[in-house]
Amino acid sequence: MSTLISGIAASNGIAIAKAYRLTEPDLSIVKRSIEDVGAEISRFKEAIQKSINELEIIRDKAEKDLGADKAAIFDAHLLVLADPELITPIQDKIQSENVNAEFSLNETASMFITMFEQMDNEYMKERAADIRDVTKRVLSHLLGVHIPNPSMIAEEVIIIAEDLTPSDTAQLNPAYVKGFTTDIGGRTSHSAIMARSLEIPAVVGAKSVTSSIENGDLVIIDGLKGEVHINPTPELVKRYEEEQEAYARQKAEWAKLVHEKTVTNDGHHVELAANIGTPKDLEGVHQNGGEGIGLYRTEFLYMGRNDFPSEEEQFEAYKAVLEGMSGKPVVVRTLDIGGDKELPYLELPKEMNPFLGYRAIRLCLNEQEIFRTQLRALLRASIYGDLKIMFPMIATLAEFREAKAVLAEVRQELLDNGIQVAEKIEVGIMVEIPSTAVMADIFAKEVDFFSIGTNDLIQYTMAADRMNERVSYLYQPYNPAILRLVKMVIDAAHKEGKWAGMCGEMAGDEVAIPILIGLGLDEFSMSATSILKARSLISQLSLEEMKKLSQEVLGLDTNDNVKEAVVNALKK
Amino acid sequence: MSTLISGIAASNGIAIAKAYRLTEPDLSIVKRSIEDVGAEISRFKEAIQKSINELEIIRDKAEKDLGADKAAIFDAHLLVLADPELITPIQDKIQSENVNAEFSLNETASMFITMFEQMDNEYMKERAADIRDVTKRVLSHLLGVHIPNPSMIAEEVIIIAEDLTPSDTAQLNPAYVKGFTTDIGGRTSHSAIMARSLEIPAVVGAKSVTSSIENGDLVIIDGLKGEVHINPTPELVKRYEEEQEAYARQKAEWAKLVHEKTVTNDGHHVELAANIGTPKDLEGVHQNGGEGIGLYRTEFLYMGRNDFPSEEEQFEAYKAVLEGMSGKPVVVRTLDIGGDKELPYLELPKEMNPFLGYRAIRLCLNEQEIFRTQLRALLRASIYGDLKIMFPMIATLAEFREAKAVLAEVRQELLDNGIQVAEKIEVGIMVEIPSTAVMADIFAKEVDFFSIGTNDLIQYTMAADRMNERVSYLYQPYNPAILRLVKMVIDAAHKEGKWAGMCGEMAGDEVAIPILIGLGLDEFSMSATSILKARSLISQLSLEEMKKLSQEVLGLDTNDNVKEAVVNALKK
Repeated sequence: MSTLISGIAASNGIAIAKAYRLTEPDLSIVKRSIEDVGAEISRFKEAIQKSINELEIIRDKAEKDLGADKAAIFDAHLLVLADPELITPIQDKIQSENVNAEFSLNETASMFITMFEQMDNEYMKERAADIRDVTKRVLSHLLGVHIPNPSMIAEEVIIIAEDLTPSDTAQLNPAYVKGFTTDIGGRTSHSAIMARSLEIPAVVGAKSVTSSIENGDLVIIDGLKGEVHINPTPELVKRYEEEQEAYARQKAEWAKLVHEKTVTNDGHHVELAANIGTPKDLEGVHQNGGEGIGLYRTEFLYMGRNDFPSEEEQFEAYKAVLEGMSGKPVVVRTLDIGGDKELPYLELPKEMNPFLGYRAIRLCLNEQEIFRTQLRALLRASIYGDLKIMFPMIATLAEFREAKAVLAEVRQELLDNGIQVAEKIEVGIMVEIPSTAVMADIFAKEVDFFSIGTNDLIQYTMAADRMNERVSYLYQPYNPAILRLVKMVIDAAHKEGKWAGMCGEMAGDEVAIPILIGLGLDEFSMSATSILKARSLISQLSLEEMKKLSQEVLGLDTNDNVKEAVVNALKK
Repeated sequence: MSTLISGIAASNGIAIAKAYRLTEPDLSIVKRSIEDVGAEISRFKEAIQKSINELEIIRDKAEKDLGADKAAIFDAHLLVLADPELITPIQDKIQSENVNAEFSLNETASMFITMFEQMDNEYMKERAADIRDVTKRVLSHLLGVHIPNPSMIAEEVIIIAEDLTPSDTAQLNPAYVKGFTTDIGGRTSHSAIMARSLEIPAVVGAKSVTSSIENGDLVIIDGLKGEVHINPTPELVKRYEEEQEAYARQKAEWAKLVHEKTVTNDGHHVELAANIGTPKDLEGVHQNGGEGIGLYRTEFLYMGRNDFPSEEEQFEAYKAVLEGMSGKPVVVRTLDIGGDKELPYLELPKEMNPFLGYRAIRLCLNEQEIFRTQLRALLRASIYGDLKIMFPMIATLAEFREAKAVLAEVRQELLDNGIQVAEKIEVGIMVEIPSTAVMADIFAKEVDFFSIGTNDLIQYTMAADRMNERVSYLYQPYNPAILRLVKMVIDAAHKEGKWAGMCGEMAGDEVAIPILIGLGLDEFSMSATSILKARSLISQLSLEEMKKLSQEVLGLDTNDNVKEAVVNALKK
């Protein structure tokens, strides 16, 4: 009998496949006295070796299927297994207390985990998570229990899990994982964002999927409606297969737009660009018809390593992106690190409110060597394409002027040393702090462009941490306050003959796009997989009608009423 | 020879007195083997008893001189000394390890302190601070070392300290403490705010005062210029005595304004109200000619206790304030708790960014019993004066409507039960979130008044935690972005025939006041001690000129340039 569970539609599309439960195995432990200590230590060493072998296979497979950055997590796990500071005390404990390996491992690892977790340091907390993962793996070998390895999945499945951690999603191979559903999470949770980026249909926050679905059950994930069907009737499967085909046809329609311009039905052109994190993302940009890069998040260059990337490494990455885009615009955001985004090799004081703290341009202006190295690499790469440089978290004119002065100095130094730099490089700012939106008229005289970062702009304007579930109801992209600030920025840019873009989640949002078209936004930067759908949507809109619509919604009172007005207008 | 040290002028006025160094005594400890364990335990018990006696004297003196709330900290210390979970292990350690009491105390207390401090819980961290303070006191008796007791000061002194903690300032008796100076801190640090509230001249952030000043040195604190003179020449002392008299004369001039209205030199009237925390603060309000209470922070009713205050307790406090103000307006802010302000009896999840978190109206709308109890107490008290109710942290129209609906329900319940409630109670909101400032035109149709909370409005608008030293440069009250938001709020209120006030630090700021007069602010609420000076300043301003000035500064680019423009305009 078919069962229906409703959840949150997290990633479009329909998947039909067998369930693969990614659930926690039973790793409970009993303390035992050991007679033959030598044999027990051998058993422990054997479990370590099995874990190493297993991790090496997983690491290599992840590297091949998913890329080096996703594989790095397993290198960290292998390092834990090679760490004598963890392994030796476990063996000592077996020996000195005559206890079994499981018990000794668990006791010792727990102590380290507790210690690392109590430290006010993200890096050490991540180490705690690594030790926890590795301990589970070794325990599973000691106990002879199988732990599911999402990276080893080699048949078409739908993943059923309580939640997916970054470590889990890093291991998913989209060739085999057709969809997933989780008990918890929301539209902006990590797993939902990953699903959209991998273009896997997903339903999250479906509460009871792990308790309702068995391994091997046939499951349908309806990522459009947010529905999960368990053991569906043949009729239902047939209906969904038809919908799946319809969705595939729609995607094929969208795909025809890949080389098209983005134009409203009354001839107004806007630019649809992509947000990227690494040069590897360019493939997706081209496949989806990105007209440029609206946001290159350079943080990824600095993450998952033990020291700052050299000027040369950065230069190579920037050059690769500029060349890869063959002269199309590439907006590179300078380093946005600090606050909640930490680097293990950059020690920063713990802050009470990291989102309101020492990060991005605030840090770069204070620790200028980091900033200058990046600017040198960028300027050197500038001759390989159409580079635009964008400073993040600008709150005041003074900060922007100082950042621009540093850039001018670095440029002059390069020229003095005979190094070529592009003649014209546009220099702009992220508008993600309310003060900057309010002062956009003054900024517009001095910047070459604005890019509105809605994720942060919304959370600061509403004074609500978007990661905090208790206040996430205040993350309101359609709140007229946000729309009014967006309008201020666009109007200010146009008055001075500059362009205004947007690079937050909102730029790819179906309800926001009509309003943004009406407000005159020039560039929409979004995840590459959203571009074709947005292009299709925009081609059905009329600039003149959207102008009227946006004027109307600016005078409304609440987020919900704006959403309703847009949905009603589009129905007509 | 006279020495000059410059620091930050934190509190106006001039003080001349002998130095009293509030510095850490040497409490270093040596581990010793003990022969006579019984004698050592007696010695420990004796030190405990001495500490108890001392604390009781300090507690009673603090209660008499400074009030019960300041004395509560010593009750907490006495509780620590009576706690067998701390005391017994110390005695056990002396006995079982044959070690001296100092060592045993220090080892045991350190363990508890570390444990409590590592907990993600403000209440437990405060307990750690209590144990640290108490341990010092007992150690001082064991070691025969004197620790300075600020509460026991009974002659006129100037305090010299590295920094003053809340526990230190709670113990200061303004009758004897003529001024203070600290090595660290800024204008908005705790010690600076306390100094202004106690009207004690202070210079903070003076870097080397503790290393340059000996006990008994004659010291001059120039809280106007931010200067500290050590062992001044007789001529300098004479000059400062004259300045001191001049300042006293100026204060006497200001005092003449105590029963005056607040009027510009061209006849425009504004209202100067006071911010208060408890009914006890009313005395200062009357002494300083407050025309009303612009902000009654009700949080203090909920703090320093083990459970929520009853409706009756709250009713009594609100009634006392309303009666004490004899019909003058009293704006009561409903509970602003949560985020960084925790209550030991209200368990809240630890948040990554408490300033962007679950607090104030967000919490009250979710935990309505707390809110309804407060509203009942307020409505019952409303018949005793001119009550106005204000909701904090309103970000959306929906929140305001919900809060107002709860208020209407509570009101109806009271009326249904035959309880009298004032006919007309104005209901307004704090404007401290950017979205609310931007949407002020819509809000103005539904609220009775606005009160702009600049402390939070500035930090959200600039996305900079005002308590975080690394980004405190972004706490910019004169940034045109802030001034523009303030103008939006005032204009919106006036368009609908409502009034707009301000209750942040900015309302009492000499540079801000001329702009705010020009923008048409109706009510300025500040610490009582700033009222007369503000009244004097306003009486010298012309509304027409300030209108022009404010128009001009709204078009400027930076905080510094606005400040300069105002200072220059006032010189003319």
